[in-house]
This record gives sequence, structure tokens and C-alpha cells, in this order.
Amino acid sequence: MAITLYGGPQTRASMPRWYMEEMGIAYELVELSLAEGQHLKEDFLSINPFGKLPAMKDDSVVDANGQPLVLFESGAILLHLAEHHGNEIKRPCDRSLISQWTHFANSTLAFAIFVPDQKAKTLPRLLTQLNSEIAKGYFVNNKWGAADCAVSSYLAYIKLFFPSEDLSAYPSVEALIQSTRERPSYKKIMGMG
Amino acid sequence: MAITLYGGPQTRASMPRWYMEEMGIAYELVELSLAEGQHLKEDFLSINPFGKLPAMKDDSVVDANGQPLVLFESGAILLHLAEHHGNEIKRPCDRSLISQWTHFANSTLAFAIFVPDQKAKTLPRLLTQLNSEIAKGYFVNNKWGAADCAVSSYLAYIKLFFPSEDLSAYPSVEALIQSTRERPSYKKIMGMG
Repeated sequence: MAITLYGGPQTRASMPRWYMEEMGIAYELVELSLAEGQHLKEDFLSINPFGKLPAMKDDSVVDANGQPLVLFESGAILLHLAEHHGNEIKRPCDRSLISQWTHFANSTLAFAIFVPDQKAKTLPRLLTQLNSEIAKGYFVNNKWGAADCAVSSYLAYIKLFFPSEDLSAYPSVEALIQSTRERPSYKKIMGMG
Repeated sequence: MAITLYGGPQTRASMPRWYMEEMGIAYELVELSLAEGQHLKEDFLSINPFGKLPAMKDDSVVDANGQPLVLFESGAILLHLAEHHGNEIKRPCDRSLISQWTHFANSTLAFAIFVPDQKAKTLPRLLTQLNSEIAKGYFVNNKWGAADCAVSSYLAYIKLFFPSEDLSAYPSVEALIQSTRERPSYKKIMGMG
């Protein structure tokens, strides 16, 4: 059983990588340089023809042709890892709820953080509600998992990309960002300290 | 068994609705008026505290408290429907691949269509590659499903929001948009003709 993660600095490979570090899942990391355009060269395009990072090859799950499954999209990789390597799916609802949060993080929350007119309009409402959700504990099954990994990673992006953003109105969000940045596995994959 | 879909005009409820119409899955539609702010009133916030449409209640799948599962995020709703009502998961890889495309549609493709600087930079490359993928047939298992629903819906948005966009360099993409717009169930849910 071998997982290969194709990533690189400043890509969302940080999310599946953080997840695997936290969960003790063994993987091989292949780092590509976006600056050198390695993601657009033949070697990688044979893995992901869209040339997008991250991508993952998992030879414990085969595709329709019996070959090791290759996946892209960080949210889909997280959900796949939660199912096949993180032992997170105890009931059918767990899978749907983890998927809800990986989709939420990568679309609704990502738009609200990174698209300027959305940021002003939508982010305060999302943060208000996330503040309540986070205060209740982990997102699914009272245990840290792929849903927490995806949402916490995006929330931490706020402080990374907008260091002066005032989040004091959302104390649970702020505390989650702080505790994320203090987790040894998060520090490791972000190259922090 | 009952599915309730909470949607409204100009929301991404069109995607799960189109899917259920195509697959012959029975559902009740509750339409909310964004203009009147019904999505931010107590009745709906008890369904989805984020006030985002679409949301879905499925009483054939229970949550951790034994209550009918409530989900939001159109991509997560599509993946849930593919699993529990569309009979799309024949092998484990199917689930991961459908999830890859629902995440791709709602994050990578959505950003490339709706964020102006992304549109110039990323959309041509994505459309070039999508053109090749689409020419091969349906995305998963050679059968129309949730992956096709998500990607086709976003591609059709290009012609809806940017009618003068020239897509002639991507003939398979253009043909897919055209055939999407001609499908009776798509016309029905989009209120076309």
C-alpha cells in the first residue's frame, strides 16, 4: 500500500499532507516547482492532465482499468483519505457530512476569503456561524478529521494572507486558527519554525 | 423515503434538482425567495444555520442523533444523491472520482469562471483540457451522473453569464453546453421555454 502525494509550496497539497501527518498515514511526497513550471510538464500531466496540484496516487484503490487510482482536488483527496485510510466513516451520514465541509471549505469559504467583493459581503456572516459551530467541538463524530482539516486550513489562510484582519468578534474562530498554527504537524507541513 | 430540497431561483439548487429530474428521484421542492430574505429567517436557519441555498433533508439517511440528515453545499448534495439514490457507486473508485468532479466544478472551475483575473489566466487551460475529457464521453462509468451534472452546469453558466464568450476553440465543450440546454429536465429546472 503506497500513497504518493504530488504537491509543492504554496499549493493546497498542504491540506492532505497535514491530514496524513496528523493521522499517521504513510505517504511519499513528490514536490514540484510551480516557478519552474514542473506542473505543466509531460511527467506530471500524465498524472493530472489539468496540471493542478495537489494530486494523489493511491495504489490501494484501483480505477476502472485496474490501475492505481489517481485523484486531484484537495477536497476530494481529503474525503478519499478519510474513507480509505483515516477510518472516519462509521455511518453513511459521516461521509456526506465530511463531504459537506470539504465542499464548503473549498468553494463557499474560499470564495468568501479570496474574492474581494465576496469577502466584504459574505465572510462576516460565515465567520459568525462558524464561530458557533466551532464552539460545539469537532465537525463530525467529535473527533478531529478531514472536515476540521479543510475548514481550519482555510481559516488559517485568513491570518496568512490578511495578517491584520481583526477576528476578535469571532473568538472561537480565532482560537482555532491559533491552535492550528501551534500543531506540530501543521507547522511541519507549512515549513513554520 | 422523502427528500426535501430547499432552493430558489438563481441558486445552485438547480444542480441537485436537475440531477433528481434526470434520474427520476422523487423530491419535494421548497422554494425560498432570496429577494425577500427568506433564507435568513428562522424557519430556514433551523435547516441550514449558514442561510445558504441549496440545502436538503433526506429522511432515508439519519444523522448521529437519529434525525433525518440535513446537508448543504450543492456538490455534497449531488455526491450524497449519487450514493444513496442514483445507484452510481459500483466500486470505491467511483465515489472518489465523482467527488473529484463535484469539487472541481464548485471550486477550480467556479473560480475560473466567476473571478475575473482567474478567468483570463486559468479558464483557457481548463477548457482546453475539459474539451479532451468531454470528447472521451461521460466522466465516470460511461454513464451520465453527478459528475456530469456538476461540470455541465458550470460550463452552461459560461453561456448564461457571458453570452458573447467565444468557445469555438473548444468544440466538445460547446456541444456539451448546447446539449445540456436542450435536455428537457434542464430546461424545466432552469425555467427555460
